[in-house]
Formats: sequence, structure tokens, C-alpha cells
Amino acid sequence: MNQYVFLNERFIATENAGISFRDLAFQRGYGMFDFFRVYNGIALFLEDHLDRFYASAKNMHLPVKQSRNEMRSIIYELIQRNQINHSGIRITLTGGVSPDGYSIAEPTLVIAQQHFQPCTEEQFKKGIRLMSYEHQRQLAHVKTVDYLMAIHLQPKLKAIGADDILYYTNDLVRECPRANVFVVTKEDQIITPSQNILKGITRNKVLGLASKDFLIAEKEITINEILSSKEVFITSSTKEILPVMQIDEVVFRADNNVSQALHKQLQRLIQEYSLVTAE
Amino acid sequence: MNQYVFLNERFIATENAGISFRDLAFQRGYGMFDFFRVYNGIALFLEDHLDRFYASAKNMHLPVKQSRNEMRSIIYELIQRNQINHSGIRITLTGGVSPDGYSIAEPTLVIAQQHFQPCTEEQFKKGIRLMSYEHQRQLAHVKTVDYLMAIHLQPKLKAIGADDILYYTNDLVRECPRANVFVVTKEDQIITPSQNILKGITRNKVLGLASKDFLIAEKEITINEILSSKEVFITSSTKEILPVMQIDEVVFRADNNVSQALHKQLQRLIQEYSLVTAE
Repeated sequence: MNQYVFLNERFIATENAGISFRDLAFQRGYGMFDFFRVYNGIALFLEDHLDRFYASAKNMHLPVKQSRNEMRSIIYELIQRNQINHSGIRITLTGGVSPDGYSIAEPTLVIAQQHFQPCTEEQFKKGIRLMSYEHQRQLAHVKTVDYLMAIHLQPKLKAIGADDILYYTNDLVRECPRANVFVVTKEDQIITPSQNILKGITRNKVLGLASKDFLIAEKEITINEILSSKEVFITSSTKEILPVMQIDEVVFRADNNVSQALHKQLQRLIQEYSLVTAE
Repeated sequence: MNQYVFLNERFIATENAGISFRDLAFQRGYGMFDFFRVYNGIALFLEDHLDRFYASAKNMHLPVKQSRNEMRSIIYELIQRNQINHSGIRITLTGGVSPDGYSIAEPTLVIAQQHFQPCTEEQFKKGIRLMSYEHQRQLAHVKTVDYLMAIHLQPKLKAIGADDILYYTNDLVRECPRANVFVVTKEDQIITPSQNILKGITRNKVLGLASKDFLIAEKEITINEILSSKEVFITSSTKEILPVMQIDEVVFRADNNVSQALHKQLQRLIQEYSLVTAE
């Protein structure tokens, strides 16, 4: 079965979807994207993702030809054409094919769907191990294509057996390259940073769920605070919620009750969303 | 007349040189390059550029299939095929088409030639105006494709009538996005930063030339020092040497004698190199 992508103004077979090597994303790293899951044929939290996509595009000085309605139609036509259960859709927008290789041109738009398996119960139980690294993402509030540092650090991660990176700056916790970070304090308060980070859609959903049963705060967390907290977990569209079992040499011996409870609530929210949207 | 690019393992017509939208440079900004001028059919300072290219590739964990000899042959075959006077060649190497969209795969290699006009006498006389901006390039010593901040700032540059950006961090001058910065002090000493920058090939050539007639130093320059210096100029493969006439609100009323003398010497060096290499 052929798979399609939407490239600029039309659907084409994936194998024919070539990008120019003069594209500003390829030559200058100038591009942005958004990514959301497709669950039971429904684009999860699509309006939140479109909000962020259009905001990122504006911030990057990249005009989007498609109206919001057109974007929704394209996304659902792509889902209809490809028929992939358990998938994700990535909308990428770049500076386009620049005549001088530097100035923003007519943006390139790629909407592509790919297979995607959510984390298993076992992966949740196992949790993840983070390596801290001092780094501040540029244009942190925009979902840019800039993962240079994260990918550059992969061999180091593997060498020490860590799963992901925890960025911090001036002793303050920021985020993982593709996820937000939460701590549960010994007083059962739930805290997540709000400055100089990308505000994830799952982060916002989890904050909403947590506020019903916990005191929540969006504020700075120091490295010392995170290392002495009761529970740490990360959130993202692909990972939902995952407990952090270790940061550098510090092992958390947490029961992860809070992340477990919130994970169940998030999964319920996802199911409800897909049912209500399908009607 | 058809133009060719070298893509991975073969020469193909430019219009057929499509890159996958799953390439790590396109999706994650993970790529690097080098760029050199072709002058009278000669690849200028090719060995210096190949040194830096292979060093960048190693630092980025990207294996290069082609030996140095093979790389030289490909470059000269490209020059033969395309026959473009006044041109530049860009060798781009990326993380390749990654199955999971994140892990480094088999690298993508693109060697492409493009038209290029060196600066005119008038442009040299006019010089350029810089806008200072606090920013530190990531992996500064590697020629990565990361120009996110530089391109993001273009509308701001245009709004105030500046030509380029002067990056600084903690009050210390770093570099322009595509050029190195030199100052001439009131005592006729020539200084250029050497930490947390990309060391340009032209920068090194100019340091060599300047050392014959001047005291030179590779060391930190503060913003105050640059603003109170006698002359400021930038160096790059495309711009050679260009005097800086203004930084933010500070206008330099320099005669630019030093940059003019060095520019003549650099142009002589370029001519000599092309003549000697052609033999």
C-alpha cells in the first residue's frame, strides 16, 4: 500500500517527495514543526497543536498559505489515504528554497505520517535515566528543527547508559530535548519549569489533570531540588508520562504513585477526546 | 548547459538532486558543511578546507566514505563538468535518512557548485554596518548548518538598516554568523578572538599576512574595546576582507588603511595560490 505525504500544495507518494538541497532547513537549519498522535483515526488535541504551529510559524517569519480549515482537511485526508493505526503526523515548515542560500523564501511545507508505538506498561515501569547537561535551546518557546546538541550528545548518552538528556542553565532545570520535566516534592506539590522551555501540549494537559488533586506550580526548579524530590517524570506527545528513575548518579527510589495516577488520567483523557471528536 | 551536483556516490543533474524530508538535516538540523571559492578553475585553499571538513565530520560523529584523494577528484570533476567562473563549492554532510527520525544514519553528502560574485571595490569602500546581539553558537568550532538565530534576526537587521550581526557573550566579542572579526587598536596591534568561534580559513590567512607587519594577538575583545578601536574589519571566504563602518550607534571614522593593505595582500595571495596550484 502506497503511503502519501503532503508536499507544499499536493499529496504525493512518499518515495517521490524530494526536497531541494537548497532548502533553508537543509542548508541553514531554518525550520520548525509540530507533531501529534493519531489515535483511532483521530488527530489528538489537534487544535492545541495547530495553535502552536501557527504561533511558531509567525515567530519564525514564515507565512502559512493554508488556512486553519484547509490544514484540518489536509490532515484528515492524509489519515484517510494512509490508514495507519498507531501513528504520528509531523507538519514541517521551513525557510524554503532560497536563491541566495540565506534569505527566507517561499516556505516548504511537508505533512507526513509515520508509524508510532506508544510506550508499553513495561517501559513505564522501567522508567528512564537522564544525563544532565548545561545547555539552553535557542528560541526555546518555538518548536524549531534545532536538535543539534541533543543528537551530538547521543554517543555520550549511550556510553554511560542514559536514555535522554536533562538540559539545565545556571543551575536551573529546563527540559529534555523532546519532553517537559515535572517534579513531585516531598510535600506532594507538583512543579514544572515555565521559562525558557517549549511548552508541550501534553505538559499543559498534565498540569490541568494534576490541578484537580494537587497543588501545582509553574516555576524554576534548581538541580538540587530535582535531585532531592520525591518523584520526577517527563511528559511528551509520544511518551505521554514516563517516570525518571535516575539523573546522573542519583537513583530515585520512588513508588511513582503520582506519575502512575496521572498517567491513567491522561490515557482516559486521550480516549475521551478521541470518542468525543469522532462523533 | 546542465549543472551537476554530487549526491552521495554519483554526479546527477541539479534538478534531480532530491533530498528525503526524513534527512536529519531537514528534520533535526543535524548537518555540517564547508565552503570554498573556485578561482580561475582552482579550488582556493582546498587543503585547509578539507582539513576543517574532515575535522567537523569527526566531531559530528559522521563518517565520510570518501578518502581525501577521492574528495579532491570529485571536486575537480565537478569544476570540469559545470564550468562556472566565479563560483563557490559547498560540501554538505548530514545525519542522513534516519529510520527513527533521531539517530544518526548513513550520512548524506552533497557537493554543489554555485555562482558567486566577490565584493566590488565600491562595496569595500562602503563597508558594512553591524548590529550586536548576545548569542553563543552551539558547537562553535564546528561549521554546522545551524544559522537559526542569524536568519531569525534578518527582519530586525533590515528594520534598522544593518548588514550583519556581531555576536557577543558576557560582553566579549565572538564572531559574525558567517565571518570572523578583527580590530586594529590605536597602537596598531591587530587582535581577533580565538575562543568559542569558528576559525575561518580566511581568518588564518589574514593572521599570517598581518604578522609580517604588525603585532598580532588571538585573544578576547570586549565590546568596549571594539567600539573604541581604530579600525574593525571582518574576514570570510566570500567577503575576503570588509571594513566595518558602524556597530549599533557607533560610527567609525577610520581611514581603513590597515584593512585596505591586508586586503591587497590577501588578493595577491589568492592569485599566487591559483597560479602555483594550476601548474
